[in-house]
Amino acid sequence: MAAANHMRRAIELSLEMMRSGRGGPFGAVVVKNDQIIAEGFNQVTSSNDPTAHAEVVAVRRACQALSTFDLTGCEIYTSCEPCPMCLGAIYWARFSRIYYANDRYDAAKIGFRDDFLYQEIRMPPRQRSIPAKRLLRAEGRAAFEEWDRKSDKIPY
Amino acid sequence: MAAANHMRRAIELSLEMMRSGRGGPFGAVVVKNDQIIAEGFNQVTSSNDPTAHAEVVAVRRACQALSTFDLTGCEIYTSCEPCPMCLGAIYWARFSRIYYANDRYDAAKIGFRDDFLYQEIRMPPRQRSIPAKRLLRAEGRAAFEEWDRKSDKIPY
Repeated sequence: MAAANHMRRAIELSLEMMRSGRGGPFGAVVVKNDQIIAEGFNQVTSSNDPTAHAEVVAVRRACQALSTFDLTGCEIYTSCEPCPMCLGAIYWARFSRIYYANDRYDAAKIGFRDDFLYQEIRMPPRQRSIPAKRLLRAEGRAAFEEWDRKSDKIPY
Repeated sequence: MAAANHMRRAIELSLEMMRSGRGGPFGAVVVKNDQIIAEGFNQVTSSNDPTAHAEVVAVRRACQALSTFDLTGCEIYTSCEPCPMCLGAIYWARFSRIYYANDRYDAAKIGFRDDFLYQEIRMPPRQRSIPAKRLLRAEGRAAFEEWDRKSDKIPY
């Protein structure tokens, strides 16, 4: 079955790249028309990039391969349920479907904060463990108003 | 006041880079010990990278500048409240504090889906507009168990 094979490849990446010391035990593949068009694996610690989760890496590579920022019609197979960062990336890229093997609770059991992030993100910005404060609201608005009026903008 | 100046730089980036056609009206700066150590702006459409939001770009650049994946003690100033993807990146990088000017509702008014993403992310994976399905749970678990036992792992 194709879906199972795609997931097996994501899991294989998670094992191989963890063993080679590239980062955490996470792999992902992007599939279009039942073919893998990009692969990603966690490389946070080896590349000094906290955003280099398997899904983000796979999304960026798929977009480079297809020369687009819009992956409509693509599916992502990931060895673990996407964290909020990766889920956001998947939405911005307009994926059609997500498949995952481990979930956020499995990740918590081996020391990852995915479930904690899902809890934090629901909270009002001021009450989170990383507090957020609003500043210069009126000055910030100018750029948004100009974007709204901009005639040659590229929506995404 | 230093905080206001840092935010003004983030807003300036949002305006300048939007005008130059690099992407949406969003800028961000990373500050450590009251000095800007990295800047970012939205470049989704110009770089074909849906993850190239201002905050993600600034986080990646700050980590390269400091040769680390851990930005403990840093603050981020962003011209708009971070979307769930960027908020996740900020948590993984271990920022101490977030400042923002526009918010998710301002972003919605000019056509951006930040608030929609905050709503989606709360929902059970199967019920979202991009549905997520679990697959090969038992096979995925092997990599997690190996990570748990791994003696030379680098936590992040």
